[in-house]
Formats: sequence, C-alpha cells, structure tokens
Amino acid sequence: MDYNQRSIDLHRELGGKIKIQGKLPLQTIEDLSLAYTPGVAGPCLAIAADERLARELTIKKNSVAVVTDGSAVLGLGNIGPQAALPVMEGKALLFKELADIDAYPICLATQDPDEIIRTVRSIAPGFGGINLEDIAAPNCFYIERALQDLGIPVFHDDQHGTAIVLLAALLNACELTSRNVSHLRIAINGAGAAGLAIAQLLHDHARETKEKDRLEIVLCDTKGAIHSDRQDLNSEKQLALSFTNPHSRQGPIQDILEGMDVFIGVSQANLLTAADVRRMAKDPLIFALANPVPEILPDEARKGGVAIMATGRSDFPNQVNNALVFPGIFRGALDGGKQQITTEMKLAAASALAQAVGRPAVERILPSVLDRSVAGIVARAVART
Amino acid sequence: MDYNQRSIDLHRELGGKIKIQGKLPLQTIEDLSLAYTPGVAGPCLAIAADERLARELTIKKNSVAVVTDGSAVLGLGNIGPQAALPVMEGKALLFKELADIDAYPICLATQDPDEIIRTVRSIAPGFGGINLEDIAAPNCFYIERALQDLGIPVFHDDQHGTAIVLLAALLNACELTSRNVSHLRIAINGAGAAGLAIAQLLHDHARETKEKDRLEIVLCDTKGAIHSDRQDLNSEKQLALSFTNPHSRQGPIQDILEGMDVFIGVSQANLLTAADVRRMAKDPLIFALANPVPEILPDEARKGGVAIMATGRSDFPNQVNNALVFPGIFRGALDGGKQQITTEMKLAAASALAQAVGRPAVERILPSVLDRSVAGIVARAVART
Repeated sequence: MDYNQRSIDLHRELGGKIKIQGKLPLQTIEDLSLAYTPGVAGPCLAIAADERLARELTIKKNSVAVVTDGSAVLGLGNIGPQAALPVMEGKALLFKELADIDAYPICLATQDPDEIIRTVRSIAPGFGGINLEDIAAPNCFYIERALQDLGIPVFHDDQHGTAIVLLAALLNACELTSRNVSHLRIAINGAGAAGLAIAQLLHDHARETKEKDRLEIVLCDTKGAIHSDRQDLNSEKQLALSFTNPHSRQGPIQDILEGMDVFIGVSQANLLTAADVRRMAKDPLIFALANPVPEILPDEARKGGVAIMATGRSDFPNQVNNALVFPGIFRGALDGGKQQITTEMKLAAASALAQAVGRPAVERILPSVLDRSVAGIVARAVART
Repeated sequence: MDYNQRSIDLHRELGGKIKIQGKLPLQTIEDLSLAYTPGVAGPCLAIAADERLARELTIKKNSVAVVTDGSAVLGLGNIGPQAALPVMEGKALLFKELADIDAYPICLATQDPDEIIRTVRSIAPGFGGINLEDIAAPNCFYIERALQDLGIPVFHDDQHGTAIVLLAALLNACELTSRNVSHLRIAINGAGAAGLAIAQLLHDHARETKEKDRLEIVLCDTKGAIHSDRQDLNSEKQLALSFTNPHSRQGPIQDILEGMDVFIGVSQANLLTAADVRRMAKDPLIFALANPVPEILPDEARKGGVAIMATGRSDFPNQVNNALVFPGIFRGALDGGKQQITTEMKLAAASALAQAVGRPAVERILPSVLDRSVAGIVARAVART
C-alpha cells in the first residue's frame, strides 16, 4: 500500500496529529482556584501592569503559530487552507519533537496578502513567534517583510529554512572538494520563495566573508537566466539582479550550467540529464531539491560525473530538509528573546548545522533529520548572536 | 499567602498552563514519511477533493479557538489581550479536562468589532468551533451574531454559558420551592452580556413551554429598571424591551424587588441588604453572581429570609460556574456536527444540567464543577437536538 493511502488511514485513526495537554491537574477546588478563578487574577494583573511578564507567566514564551494560506503547499500547489492543515499539523509535530516548542496551526481563509498581514497582527499577542508556511511567491516576501516590526520573530520557512540548510550542505560539500564557498560559480533553477532566498543567503554569506566579488550566482526561472534585459521580472527578481548574474548571461538553465561548480534546483522533476552535468566544471555539486521527483536522479547525475549530490528525499543520502533548521531557529530565538530572525542568525544557524555533522563525507554533508541533537546545536548558535 | 500571589508563582513555574503534544511517535523515517512528507500529500489531496474530510482527518474535528480581545476579563475589566492570556489558558485547560476538547487561546490585538469578525473568519478553517470569551457588551452581541454563518458553532460563553447554568439552577430551585419557572416574577440587575442573555434564555424557555405571558422579567442597569421611556438605551437593551418589563415599571433595583420571586445579579458587590430581600415575595430565590464579592452575601440574605441562594463562588454552596456548561455544549456540538449553537440546544443543555444534579437540595441545585460526568450529560443532550 502506498504512503498516501497509509497516511490517510493513519490520519483518520488519529483524528489529527497533535492535541492540547494541561500542565497541571484539576482535581480540587484549590487547583481550580489557582489555575482559574479567583487566583488567575494575579498573573492577569501582573501582565496588565508589565506586558513583558507575558513571556514568563504564559504559553507565549514557548508558542509559535504555523500560519498558512494554503497557496503553495508542498509540491501540491494552491490546495487551500483546509487541505493544508495536515501539513501544518506535521510541522507542529516536528516543532514539538525536535525542539519542544508548542506550535499551533493557523490556516487562513484568505489569500489576500494585506488581509494575511492584518490577521497575523491581530493574533500575535498570544504567540512568541510566527512561522509562515507554504505561502506562494511573491506574496510571501511582501508578507514577511511587512511583519518584521511585530516584536516577535516572523520567519517564512520555505524561504529561509531551505536556504539555511542549503548553505550548510554547501559548506560541507566545499570542504570535501577543497573549494571556497565564496569563490563558487552557482546556477540556481527556480526563482520562487526558496530560489530567491538561497541566492540572497549565499550572497550574504559571501559578503560577510568579504569575498562577494568572486561569487557568481545565476538565477533562472522557467524562461531561463534572469538578466537585466528581461521585461517580465517581478520586483523580487529585479531586486536579485543587484547581486546575481554579474556578466548578464542569457539562455536556458542547460546553457547556464556551462562551467558552473554548483547546480541548485528548486524547480521541477527531471530537468537535467547526465549530458547537462558534463557541461559543468570538474567535480560539480548538485542539489536537486524538487519533490518528490528531483531535477535529476542520483544515478543519472553520477553518469555525468557529479562529485556530491543532495536531494529533498529521505530515501537518498544528503536530504535537504527544513526540519534540520526551523526547530532550532525558533528554539534559539525564543530562548534568546529575539524580536526578529536576522541575517546574522541565519548564517550562524547554517554554520552550526554544517558543524553538527561532525566529520562530513560525500554521502553525509548534512545530519539526519531524526538526530535529536541538531536543534539544540542550531538553537545555541542562534541564541548567542 | 493569597491566591493571587500563589497563582503568579504557579504560572511562572509552569510557563503557561497548556502545551502541545504529538499523538504519534517520530522515531523513524517511516514515521516521518506518514506523518509528514511524502505521505501527508494523501490526506491533503483527499481534503482538497472533499473539504468535509477535514473533520475526519485533521485536528479540526476536536479543536476550539478561545477568542478574546481582553476587553472584559473576569471582573478585571479591559486589561487587554496579553493580560487576558492566563484566563484563556485556564479555559483551554477546562475544555481539556472536562470534555477532552483541544482548545487554543487566541488573544487579539484589536478591540474593533469588525476587525475581530474579520480575524475570526480568517482563522476559522482550522477550528471546529469558536468560543468567544471576555468581550465587552455591546460588541459581543454584534460579533457573535455576525459570525453565525461561519459553518462552525460560534458561542459567546459570557452570555450563554452563564444563562444556561442560571436556568438550570432556577429549574431546580423552583422544583424545591414548588414554583413554575414560567410563572415567576424576576428582577435581573446588570444588563451587560450575561444579564441580557439570561433574560433572553428565560424568555425562550417560557415561550417553549407556551406560558410566556405569565413570566415577568424586569431588567435593571446602573440607572434602574429598563423601560420604554428611557432615552439612553443601546440597541440590545431596546430589543430586550419586547419581552421584559411588561408593566413598564420604573425605579432602582431595590424598588423593583418589591414582590419579586427571584433576584438575579450580574452586577456589583454588596448591592443588597437583608431589608431589600424582605421586600421580595415569600421564599425568594437569590442568584448573586458578582465576582469575587456577590451582590449580597449568603449570611445577609438569610437574615432577609432567602429560601435558596446561589453565587459565583466556589467557597459557598450552589456555585454558578460556566464550566458546568461550555465543555459539554462544545463536546455535543462537535460530536453532533452542529453548525450553530441554537436556542434549542441551550434549553436542552440547561435541562440536562438541572437533571445531572440527581436529587436537588437547597444547597445543591447545581452539580460540582469537578463532577466529570456533567459535560457528557450536557453533550449528549446537545448532540441529540
């Protein structure tokens, strides 16, 4: 029986994957008098006098809302908020299991970005962080940016979670192939949430190491390389022009690959063949993250001479999975009392995640998603910034 | 040490009173593949094809949002959403303990009624019910009414929870004093959320028994009886005129009490004395629900000849506590797949609650809040409607 049907059966049996649990018993009138009336007036009045106490006396200190509009769910597209709920529950489950964070799914009945912003502002008081999830580009950029003044971290995982894991994987892959990350020539295919965030974070990393002039990133979308002569670019792609495609290269991704060290795909199944890989530089690195079918399968990439290969799948080595990052990012932000997830935190998280591998190998440039030590390692690096 | 300080200490120790818990282990890649990707695509696509499946495959089937704007919290007034959070957590705890419902606090950063309506509509897809809580009158009426088309029950507990418990208590008190509930003469002091809802439900009950003409309810606010000559009535109080004060009585509550069978207070501490009680009919019934200090204390009421007395406090007999009703109301609505909480359900809940006492006595016209059988009894009555 396939995973999909077994998963339906499991969901039906469980009736949802998370539940609420009380932290204290309610057996006596005394219990009630402390947890509820009349005693609860104590914490209420304390917080009314000093709002900061909400972070000590309530669930706010450990709560994250997982907010979606259901417009770009997994690889399934715009299936709407109700159908997105199983994914958001899964996310909450991972938050709990990997970082002991109490995350709650909020599935929105609107896909209007301003309405989403208004709703998130409205519900924010009870939460210590907001994880935006599966919101389509370009709305996701606008929404996340608009909410940065909320006073609690607002983080679009499809952008930055992916970017951070990718950078960590790339750091280890470069170590194994004796390359300098900031000297790479990189082709990225896919200029949605993940592709743009990856380009940005790679640029930020190079800038931090003061070697950005030697990093060459060419970002491609379905129409090929994104260059300044194109008239069809949305504002996010236009912004990316300032730090990508310095030689204004044009053409389809297959041509752009010529001489490139790295291919990063966040796009579509079966895009490349072994022949395409052979056009790349010696010992190329390939991150084919389309799910469930990657841009190129490992066997085919090996025929083309790939040195190190990663996908988004759990049944191949080197799984690029956001779950390696978002639990630790939020754990660190909550523990450190952060109000935003900054670039510095993202870079620190990527570096910590790369180091969490211990001794990297060709088939081990990232830790396992099930490694319970990872979130803590990432969290400490984030909290320390 | 007083309850308030002990409660602050408890809240600090716990860091909030509820937490999220996963319903399944995440130990293996297989677990992940079923709970999350790739298997989760199964339930997502099933719901995308038929939205009704969300009630079988997700937390929606057992989830209630406890929504507040913090404008009328307990007896503390407008302390805002952040300071209201400990109360909403307490409510979620009671939902869990008494009815195994997964309730989550949503504290809103707005007190604008239209914005509250918009926000609740936005977040509704993930919930099976909405419990509005501690929202001040008259906004609470407007908001609740506007949301009745949401497709899931929307219930303002401060109105109807209180009204249902009160009606149940009154049913048993009338049985003990050989009265017909629909023939009573009743003075209600307090014309906010609770007072208006109590008047409405008593009227609805009489109408159902086809004896409304013999029920006399006079509703008072801080300016005395609400009558048709008054120019200062909000629209809710004006609406109540159609079924209250048939003889257009005027004057302060103390004068209105003359000859009345029942006093219901949802107003302020120490409003009445024994002398006021003596003006009432023989064997009067007194429901003095102001918290923490009732309109009249039991000892003082006894001096005036009260027959049966109830308060909102746990340290006196006959505690009128919404927790006797809201868990069972929502349990029944969720189990019965109800889209609204109708008058019929409220009356059924009151009747079931009255019967849940077994054999009523002067100091036992309501069950104990800690009686774990009550929610189930109320739920079955509601689901059956």
